[in-house]
Amino acid sequence: MTQIQIGSTLRYDVRQPTVFLLKIAAAYTEHQTIIDENLTLDPLVQLEQCQIGPDGNRMQRCMVQPCQLTINYQATAELSPGIDQPQDVAETEASQMPPEVLTYMNPSRYCESDLLARFAFEEFGRLPGGFQRVETICNWVYEHLDYTSGSTNATTTASDVLLQRTGVCRDYAHLAITLCRGIGIPARYVSGYAANLQPPDYHGFMEAFLDGHWYLFDPTRLASTLGLVRIGVGRDAADVAFCTLTGSAVMQEKNVWANLSQPNERDKGQVAVSTA
Amino acid sequence: MTQIQIGSTLRYDVRQPTVFLLKIAAAYTEHQTIIDENLTLDPLVQLEQCQIGPDGNRMQRCMVQPCQLTINYQATAELSPGIDQPQDVAETEASQMPPEVLTYMNPSRYCESDLLARFAFEEFGRLPGGFQRVETICNWVYEHLDYTSGSTNATTTASDVLLQRTGVCRDYAHLAITLCRGIGIPARYVSGYAANLQPPDYHGFMEAFLDGHWYLFDPTRLASTLGLVRIGVGRDAADVAFCTLTGSAVMQEKNVWANLSQPNERDKGQVAVSTA
Amino acid sequence: MTQIQIGSTLRYDVRQPTVFLLKIAAAYTEHQTIIDENLTLDPLVQLEQCQIGPDGNRMQRCMVQPCQLTINYQATAELSPGIDQPQDVAETEASQMPPEVLTYMNPSRYCESDLLARFAFEEFGRLPGGFQRVETICNWVYEHLDYTSGSTNATTTASDVLLQRTGVCRDYAHLAITLCRGIGIPARYVSGYAANLQPPDYHGFMEAFLDGHWYLFDPTRLASTLGLVRIGVGRDAADVAFCTLTGSAVMQEKNVWANLSQPNERDKGQVAVSTA
Amino acid sequence: MTQIQIGSTLRYDVRQPTVFLLKIAAAYTEHQTIIDENLTLDPLVQLEQCQIGPDGNRMQRCMVQPCQLTINYQATAELSPGIDQPQDVAETEASQMPPEVLTYMNPSRYCESDLLARFAFEEFGRLPGGFQRVETICNWVYEHLDYTSGSTNATTTASDVLLQRTGVCRDYAHLAITLCRGIGIPARYVSGYAANLQPPDYHGFMEAFLDGHWYLFDPTRLASTLGLVRIGVGRDAADVAFCTLTGSAVMQEKNVWANLSQPNERDKGQVAVSTA
Repeated sequence: MTQIQIGSTLRYDVRQPTVFLLKIAAAYTEHQTIIDENLTLDPLVQLEQCQIGPDGNRMQRCMVQPCQLTINYQATAELSPGIDQPQDVAETEASQMPPEVLTYMNPSRYCESDLLARFAFEEFGRLPGGFQRVETICNWVYEHLDYTSGSTNATTTASDVLLQRTGVCRDYAHLAITLCRGIGIPARYVSGYAANLQPPDYHGFMEAFLDGHWYLFDPTRLASTLGLVRIGVGRDAADVAFCTLTGSAVMQEKNVWANLSQPNERDKGQVAVSTA
Repeated sequence: MTQIQIGSTLRYDVRQPTVFLLKIAAAYTEHQTIIDENLTLDPLVQLEQCQIGPDGNRMQRCMVQPCQLTINYQATAELSPGIDQPQDVAETEASQMPPEVLTYMNPSRYCESDLLARFAFEEFGRLPGGFQRVETICNWVYEHLDYTSGSTNATTTASDVLLQRTGVCRDYAHLAITLCRGIGIPARYVSGYAANLQPPDYHGFMEAFLDGHWYLFDPTRLASTLGLVRIGVGRDAADVAFCTLTGSAVMQEKNVWANLSQPNERDKGQVAVSTA
Repeated sequence: MTQIQIGSTLRYDVRQPTVFLLKIAAAYTEHQTIIDENLTLDPLVQLEQCQIGPDGNRMQRCMVQPCQLTINYQATAELSPGIDQPQDVAETEASQMPPEVLTYMNPSRYCESDLLARFAFEEFGRLPGGFQRVETICNWVYEHLDYTSGSTNATTTASDVLLQRTGVCRDYAHLAITLCRGIGIPARYVSGYAANLQPPDYHGFMEAFLDGHWYLFDPTRLASTLGLVRIGVGRDAADVAFCTLTGSAVMQEKNVWANLSQPNERDKGQVAVSTA
Repeated sequence: MTQIQIGSTLRYDVRQPTVFLLKIAAAYTEHQTIIDENLTLDPLVQLEQCQIGPDGNRMQRCMVQPCQLTINYQATAELSPGIDQPQDVAETEASQMPPEVLTYMNPSRYCESDLLARFAFEEFGRLPGGFQRVETICNWVYEHLDYTSGSTNATTTASDVLLQRTGVCRDYAHLAITLCRGIGIPARYVSGYAANLQPPDYHGFMEAFLDGHWYLFDPTRLASTLGLVRIGVGRDAADVAFCTLTGSAVMQEKNVWANLSQPNERDKGQVAVSTA
């Protein structure tokens, strides 16, 4: 059981009446309990709470008049993920996958697994299946990309990244997801808070469906999978943007934090961590 | 109330043990009743029936050993869509959309609405909102594309189509969906059977979310929206491929039909048809 | 006859031995005489002068050791372009084009005229030929793009620009070139200095081959075609980058100027200006 | 000295008056002598012979009225390429390259060396320079691609091929060229006839500039570099299409042959073969 203090402050210069869709609050899941939580807007704005889909994704929606808007979120999340030994985690046969998981085999906007299927198969298709095959993919991504802030933008896809060999956390996750799907492993994008991430920010990582569960991976190696607090899951980053605006507003400040209440004793990468 | 006889026959040369995911059976929805239905495989193979997601999408899954496989589906669908006058159908404000609809604003594999948002806005962003704005988009797509069998392939996206100006039904739908999303109208892909389609085949069309409902559009103008039987809805064609194979099998024959039990009296394009 | 004072100062932090290929000096052509010219490097570095190809393109090459390098160029160019009335300038038939011109019909890195040929033909293919058809293309580009500094990068192509509808001078030129080639008009990229350009910088524009000559166009409308001093021509910007480095050096400063010795009396856009 | 009998027959159904640009005749170069040559059109059409650029590229141009056109070309080419031992062929420093060679460092339509520079550098940038580095690139291309007729089309680029891992001769050459340029080795596309190619067709291969000369490579391994008769060189396939049409004509037949007058005794791949 791990407790993590998370939060973020966002400031916007709202110039026209604008609809905000916020995806910054931690998900409610079987393995992630939100002990306390507080979301405030200044000036006070009426906030609609939404639950989206079956995976615990949440969204806050509000209509904001022109103003200097400050959005403040803080929470304490308690994580109780499944923990397995990597060598015990096999792959699931396509014929045995739950139907709702099959969606995460399809290509998506930033994960063109149809384009990269042959590449994925040639590089990873003949390796023994299981957790360690996904780890091999994440290692490959880690080793072949350079982490460079600002090297990519909101339209960069996995195949762009594979060619240009540089990116940020979102790009690492997209490429690893795409390669997994390319060899028939369902994979999805996770946005969240990562304990002790440097520099602090929202984080993007991934889950692969293995042995009946969703297992966490962070191909950037910037965070321990034991310290990841989920905001939402989706096919790729398109589904879990932390803020989507309809109207006109300019972000002035973004401050994100995530701190372990007590140091985590396990070593990074030694165990297989599942969230569902 | 319209009754349509639909069906398809698929023949495969199965060369290795292969998992088939079939999306060829008509959806069960509030506005579409399946009166009788029959799906047979020859040789006899055990078939798993799945329901996927909240929109009535169905899937059949089976594991097939090497053989000559014939898949035969037939059904009678009774359609009772909502019917409105186009001028009565307004757009829904982003602040009022049901949360589950917001997903269909996101870009997807074949509908890169992030890339085309500016284009969409400049062409259509200033027109009065409502059913007729979507119709204007569909007319634009119809007028700017040539329908050319074989001009595109499974990886062709809406932006490819916008540049090359040619495609098939799936491409027409992808481009219209992308342009709708680009101006803030949720839109989704529909696969189905279309009464009296020439040449007969599975058909791809689209729905836009307007005034609290999903309205049908066929930018190819090849079919009446009153004669469309839904198989499934998705973000784009990636979600509703009629057959996905894991293994090795080669399609040898595809035969699709859809016939109105009695001639439909309404003229095409005169009314706004909604399905949910 | 127009005289223009041109020049540029570039400062680099050279960190390793680096080969510089400079394309900043005005071309020597029949219609452009360089009255005086001065290129200095500080510290003093041996400079090799090269002539490339048949169109007057020049290049300076030097090997620079780690240092703070200042490159200073200034010159006086005297322009004596051909001047015609737009309505007198017809198109040249493919069967009559000089062979060396045909190269400028081929697609190039940033001008994928193969991809955009159908688009070009549908928009412009049926208009009457001649100078005014190219002007119509340039007007279309001007009207459909927004000039936005920083909106594109070194890998942005004409089809990217056509979709995203924004760019800088280089992108405007690439798109206009591509559309010309798409309807069978040879077109090429020109880098140069533009009198009174605001903000001052190197400029990118284009030439189309009409009636046996190369005619100048600036689809950005930022400069008069009577005040353009050519550095070089190429298939697209790839051929005329002002500085190509092999090694490691970081640009610290770029200062460009171009001033008419005496105010030009002609109005912009009233005449057809040819350079070869 | 090798003698090769080459030729091709093309048949077109010409439906409107059409300008043909043919690039099917062997180039005249220092190392390639055309002993006899015959190009006939049936029906008889006036043919204009053009020389394009400094590298021996030739083109035939004609205007053809509607008819059934047969183009017949045959020639005997005598090859006397430079022959070196691979280990003796070093790379040329950027500071020492002839200016006209630098053009072949630039990205081109199908060889986006700007996009793939980082990839190329990471895979090949640290290997010892020279003929064998280019051979390593060609081996990599050979090993990572599958040769599949029909897998690519006229718009397929090197980065497409790198992702999809399949292609034909033109794609193999484009990828190898792109990777060479990416690490600073000038490289160009060559179209030609290849002795004993199976199945017979025009062939596409490449040259890299090393040690002051252009050396031949065929990354498909379908032909010996000692049996390659050059038609033309260019930045990529865009420059040397065997037939470019302006008008309307449909190719009905293409027949290509190339036979060694006497069996070539050398083994493929053992020597470094240069053509200029």
